Amino acid sequence: MSELATKAEKLDASDELAAKRAEFVLDDVVYLDGNSLGALPVAVPGRVEDVVRRQWGELRIRSWTEGGWWTAPERIGDRIAPLVGAAAGQVVVGDSTSVNVLKALVGAVRLARPAHGGGPARDEIVVDATTFPTDGYIAGSAARMTGCTLRPVAPSDVPGVLGDRTAAVLLNHVDYRTGRLHDLPSLTAAVHAAGAYVVWDLCHSAGALPVGLDEHGVDLAVGCTYKYLNGGPGSPAYLYVRADLQDRFDSPLPGWNSHAEPFGMREDYEPAAGALRGRVGTPDILSMLALEAALEVWDGVPVDAVRAKSLALTDFFLECVEAYVPAGGVECLTPRAHAERGSQIALRRAGAGEVMRRLIERGVVGDFRQPDVLRFGFTPLYVGFADVERAARVLAEVLAEVPAEVPAEVPA
Amino acid sequence: MSELATKAEKLDASDELAAKRAEFVLDDVVYLDGNSLGALPVAVPGRVEDVVRRQWGELRIRSWTEGGWWTAPERIGDRIAPLVGAAAGQVVVGDSTSVNVLKALVGAVRLARPAHGGGPARDEIVVDATTFPTDGYIAGSAARMTGCTLRPVAPSDVPGVLGDRTAAVLLNHVDYRTGRLHDLPSLTAAVHAAGAYVVWDLCHSAGALPVGLDEHGVDLAVGCTYKYLNGGPGSPAYLYVRADLQDRFDSPLPGWNSHAEPFGMREDYEPAAGALRGRVGTPDILSMLALEAALEVWDGVPVDAVRAKSLALTDFFLECVEAYVPAGGVECLTPRAHAERGSQIALRRAGAGEVMRRLIERGVVGDFRQPDVLRFGFTPLYVGFADVERAARVLAEVLAEVPAEVPAEVPA
Repeated sequence: MSELATKAEKLDASDELAAKRAEFVLDDVVYLDGNSLGALPVAVPGRVEDVVRRQWGELRIRSWTEGGWWTAPERIGDRIAPLVGAAAGQVVVGDSTSVNVLKALVGAVRLARPAHGGGPARDEIVVDATTFPTDGYIAGSAARMTGCTLRPVAPSDVPGVLGDRTAAVLLNHVDYRTGRLHDLPSLTAAVHAAGAYVVWDLCHSAGALPVGLDEHGVDLAVGCTYKYLNGGPGSPAYLYVRADLQDRFDSPLPGWNSHAEPFGMREDYEPAAGALRGRVGTPDILSMLALEAALEVWDGVPVDAVRAKSLALTDFFLECVEAYVPAGGVECLTPRAHAERGSQIALRRAGAGEVMRRLIERGVVGDFRQPDVLRFGFTPLYVGFADVERAARVLAEVLAEVPAEVPAEVPA
Repeated sequence: MSELATKAEKLDASDELAAKRAEFVLDDVVYLDGNSLGALPVAVPGRVEDVVRRQWGELRIRSWTEGGWWTAPERIGDRIAPLVGAAAGQVVVGDSTSVNVLKALVGAVRLARPAHGGGPARDEIVVDATTFPTDGYIAGSAARMTGCTLRPVAPSDVPGVLGDRTAAVLLNHVDYRTGRLHDLPSLTAAVHAAGAYVVWDLCHSAGALPVGLDEHGVDLAVGCTYKYLNGGPGSPAYLYVRADLQDRFDSPLPGWNSHAEPFGMREDYEPAAGALRGRVGTPDILSMLALEAALEVWDGVPVDAVRAKSLALTDFFLECVEAYVPAGGVECLTPRAHAERGSQIALRRAGAGEVMRRLIERGVVGDFRQPDVLRFGFTPLYVGFADVERAARVLAEVLAEVPAEVPAEVPA
């Protein structure tokens, strides 16, 4: 047994989250793509079967009240809340991340423009230029529909461009490509100092590290639930609106589910109080209740323990890659500093498409991002240190076979 | 056996759709609430189990390509298309109805305002004042974000208010409350004559009667899938954009799933061609593939046969109610004329909340709408004529017990 394999064994033996792995359906594959689609929690299939066969099939419409369907968006939001450092009553589940970005960003612009005027005429939305594309596209739409201009800048340049014209700022907590963790507390404070409102996209951080929404005074946030929260393919996203902003939150999607009296079927729109003001239409029950079952794996799991293991996993992966891959074989895009690292490692290499194809063939599943990035996500609840050592070892084998001059490929 | 019960038996014996009932999970309840939540198709539980256990649990991210997850929105759209009289390539599934109303209505206003100017400055959205509330609320938001004013009018008054200022008109095909069927061909023609664009909400018509979107030149349409299409609680809605308008369709929700090259992760937004321009974020796979399984019940079912049975069911219900309920016992809100009737019967009665509570207790499930409406939906695929006779008979019993002066009640 190699020295690193022995080290992996020791790390696994002292891993306080190791038992969590049994709560997921896993095989002998090393699954490092939980930052794209989390693995299936064991509790989900039975719950979904109950929802379909009994709640829908037998109780039918009675389940809207008796089965707790109607209140699922805010109930499940409260289950996510502690994972992002939010007190209850501020998170609501539903719709896709993109749709929630529109709600949050238009909402933020409206918060920045008080109804009775006064103060500067804020007409600019600042967006992370390195962001996941959908955030930029939706921010462009939000700008267009609120009469703002869109200003894309690198996150590090954000503080320098803030001013009297800034209405809202949309930032990613962790960059989907490089795995870089941005400084949420200081960027939030900078946005507030300029009198503007910030929206954080937590897709690549929630469930992997502490977010501290309440602690840092974040205004609005969105996130998906199918990565580190393991909610299933395309499971509904969530929206956080800080409690003291809820009364002024003015959604661009005022659907009947967010009405103060939804079954009053009133012609005039009167928004509900609280998190459920972020609801829109009828909640997608099958996916939503699958997510609720998936969230049970978090019972008794402190987010700090998850973060500690996440950093240990990525540290160990870098150590193994350095040991197994000859110098210069790959370039690491992910920062070395813990304070700047999410829960993934991104390696750049010509021929990355082919490298990933061969890795997957040999039971190491990460993903490929155009044009030349290998992404490896480390989900602390089910990835172990022996997995990490194996992944790095197989990666070294594959890199030795695939010439570095191969052009990047488009996945099928 | 009463005369009407004998008639019901004969009607059931000659019902060419009678065998379809076996494709649904039903019990001895008379389920007349399929216009709220369709019954569970037998094919769904097994399909959902496969999606959860094998596609998600075992194949994980491979299912995005190998399992057909990525193309599900347009594939399932094509399955709905014939039910609403649309050729393939014009319907896409995803998001809630409310979200799709926003897409369609903002898209319609933008179609009405050519990029290069010219023509009248259209700044008015006309909306059915009797519409399901969410449509009115979202129309208000669309108006606000496109610089339009909202003009709510009764559908019959729509032609009289159309003019050079009209940008878009949002109409319900069948009124959710009264069951009135509006004249889609003539209202569409009137909107077009004014140079404006029409959006039809098909929630209460699709799957119950022919819609003829292509035939009547409808511009855009939206609908839910959990009523007559039996997709399950909160299953994703759909958006229709007529083929020749797709290249100009300019969505307020340009998420990455509608990009011409979604995995290019490009900073600039270039919309995809075709129906999938109406996509937004990652599709909600569990609910979407449950819907796909549910749509299999439509194989070989002509919509004209569904309409014929629907009218026969509602005619027979009215006949039974007239026979069993003393004159003046209830007021029918649904038009008698076939051309003006959807697939539900709405009866007005003081104490409707209590009446419905007792009906449900005795195995006849309809629903109650504020303040005094009893709604009975007739799903031709699984409701039979004996069900109808029994419903009317039990209704007469309950009406005899519940005093008409009881005030309307709010449901629990």
